[in-house]
Amino acid sequence: MFIVPEKEIAGLVSADQCFEAVEAVFAAMARGDAYNFPVIREAIGHAEALYGFKSGFDRAGAVLGLKSGGYWPGNAAKGRTNHQSTVVLFDPDSGRPAALVGGNLLTALRTAAASAVSIRYLARSDARVLGMLGAGHQSAFQLRAAVAQRRFEKIVGWNYHPEMLPRLAETAAEFGLPFEAVSLEDLGAQADVIVTISSSFSAQLMDAHVRPGTHLACMGTDTKGKQEIDPAIFARARVFADEIAQSVEIGEAQHAVAAEFIAAEDIVEIGAVINGTAPGRQSDDEITVFDGTGVGLQDLAVAARAVAAARARGVAVEVDL
Amino acid sequence: MFIVPEKEIAGLVSADQCFEAVEAVFAAMARGDAYNFPVIREAIGHAEALYGFKSGFDRAGAVLGLKSGGYWPGNAAKGRTNHQSTVVLFDPDSGRPAALVGGNLLTALRTAAASAVSIRYLARSDARVLGMLGAGHQSAFQLRAAVAQRRFEKIVGWNYHPEMLPRLAETAAEFGLPFEAVSLEDLGAQADVIVTISSSFSAQLMDAHVRPGTHLACMGTDTKGKQEIDPAIFARARVFADEIAQSVEIGEAQHAVAAEFIAAEDIVEIGAVINGTAPGRQSDDEITVFDGTGVGLQDLAVAARAVAAARARGVAVEVDL
Repeated sequence: MFIVPEKEIAGLVSADQCFEAVEAVFAAMARGDAYNFPVIREAIGHAEALYGFKSGFDRAGAVLGLKSGGYWPGNAAKGRTNHQSTVVLFDPDSGRPAALVGGNLLTALRTAAASAVSIRYLARSDARVLGMLGAGHQSAFQLRAAVAQRRFEKIVGWNYHPEMLPRLAETAAEFGLPFEAVSLEDLGAQADVIVTISSSFSAQLMDAHVRPGTHLACMGTDTKGKQEIDPAIFARARVFADEIAQSVEIGEAQHAVAAEFIAAEDIVEIGAVINGTAPGRQSDDEITVFDGTGVGLQDLAVAARAVAAARARGVAVEVDL
Repeated sequence: MFIVPEKEIAGLVSADQCFEAVEAVFAAMARGDAYNFPVIREAIGHAEALYGFKSGFDRAGAVLGLKSGGYWPGNAAKGRTNHQSTVVLFDPDSGRPAALVGGNLLTALRTAAASAVSIRYLARSDARVLGMLGAGHQSAFQLRAAVAQRRFEKIVGWNYHPEMLPRLAETAAEFGLPFEAVSLEDLGAQADVIVTISSSFSAQLMDAHVRPGTHLACMGTDTKGKQEIDPAIFARARVFADEIAQSVEIGEAQHAVAAEFIAAEDIVEIGAVINGTAPGRQSDDEITVFDGTGVGLQDLAVAARAVAAARARGVAVEVDL
């Protein structure tokens, strides 16, 4: 089997390759060729850690495995990343372990790729202003993946802790794009596409803030109780998700469904749009919402690309297990 | 992190060490110091494979991780084991991967250790005849672990396919013990301890076969629908399990509970007997049943021992992930 160390990942997979991998596996999910297994997530009662797994099987891509790890809030003080992930891939023909892959950067890249996929398929083609709600570590990845999808001319951003906004300004500058720190009102008034990537537990962006025609990619809500946007927005939006069951249970849609603004049946799997079996945006005035909850198959898809690249370049460490 | 290849395991952990590891983690479970996470088990729709994982956290032993793998029925024809397992251990203080361990032999050893623990704590001290129901690959491991627990003088065995019984005879001969192939009636009539380790889907050993004073370790039933013994036996037995919830759901007790011979509340966690907080066998005439379903913490416990031994002997392969 092959080991692909975390430190090699940055040189192995580009944001574009992650986009392709995530797009392909969303499409496979919607065709019924790939599915995620139930998620395990446990507060282990030690180091305040949340530990668990996401896993699945992509028959089309012949990728089987799991991502394990979790959230260790005490890590940062010791100079380590709080989020720790490791991917294990198995040979679907034999059950033998095929690869062990550092999953920290891959998790950031696959999460960014999901919102980028939603922008490609759902945002207005003339979108020019990208809005960012959230300025933490992950926001830079989301921004980088998003700007490739439309001819954006400006980035606007808001964060609960405004002292973190320079991260967005610096990331925008990588692309020669101007950045403006704005109020939530102005975020909604200016942005054609809004990516939410905060760790909020209450709605920040309200219904009144959002103009017709906006595409919202809600990426921060991945557990019960988290919330980034006013659930009333869902009532006047067309709603898409990576996986509908997970969207309704732990995604941003949990609140809109609980408040009966929408039902699970109103949510369209993004893969169906990719496959052309469901329509995406249908008018320039429509609000589209993508609820990105993060599925194990995304992790496996990008890890499989990293393993292939690592083997091709001779940086995969082969071990006999 | 450390890699401990499958081929090294046989030289690293003895059956005695696996006994100690499994005994300790059963005790920790009963104290609430260790717990198993929900089991994932999926028919993946490819190669007729069942894939999944068992996982848990032992706070007392500071062992966190999972065993992943499954059952690939086409492997044997290609010269590989149908059951494929890999253990991944994580540092509970940081979430970083600590070790990757070949899990095939360890699975056999930890399963054998569980029945041995039950024999130590539940069989009559004067047990002299060990009965084996089942003669597949795993039966040899169960037999070897069992004979160490009492001064057995004879092994008797039955198998649905009698042509497989020489495996039991050969394994008994390793200990200089005579082996006799018997009917199910004779198995019950002669044996003081019976280990069931078949892949049966219906009761083989019937209530009328089992004498007072017998200890039964039911090890073959680990999924819905499997069954080895007459559920009526439970009505006149004291019943123990590795984990009660799993015993009732996928263990031998599933049938006895469904038929209302016992309730979940009648089952005693074996760890409580180890800890001295619940009584074990209370008379020489009592029938005791141990329902061993196999929990993730057993896998992690024996894998942690293997890693420690591999590091001490310099056979663990260190890789940078």
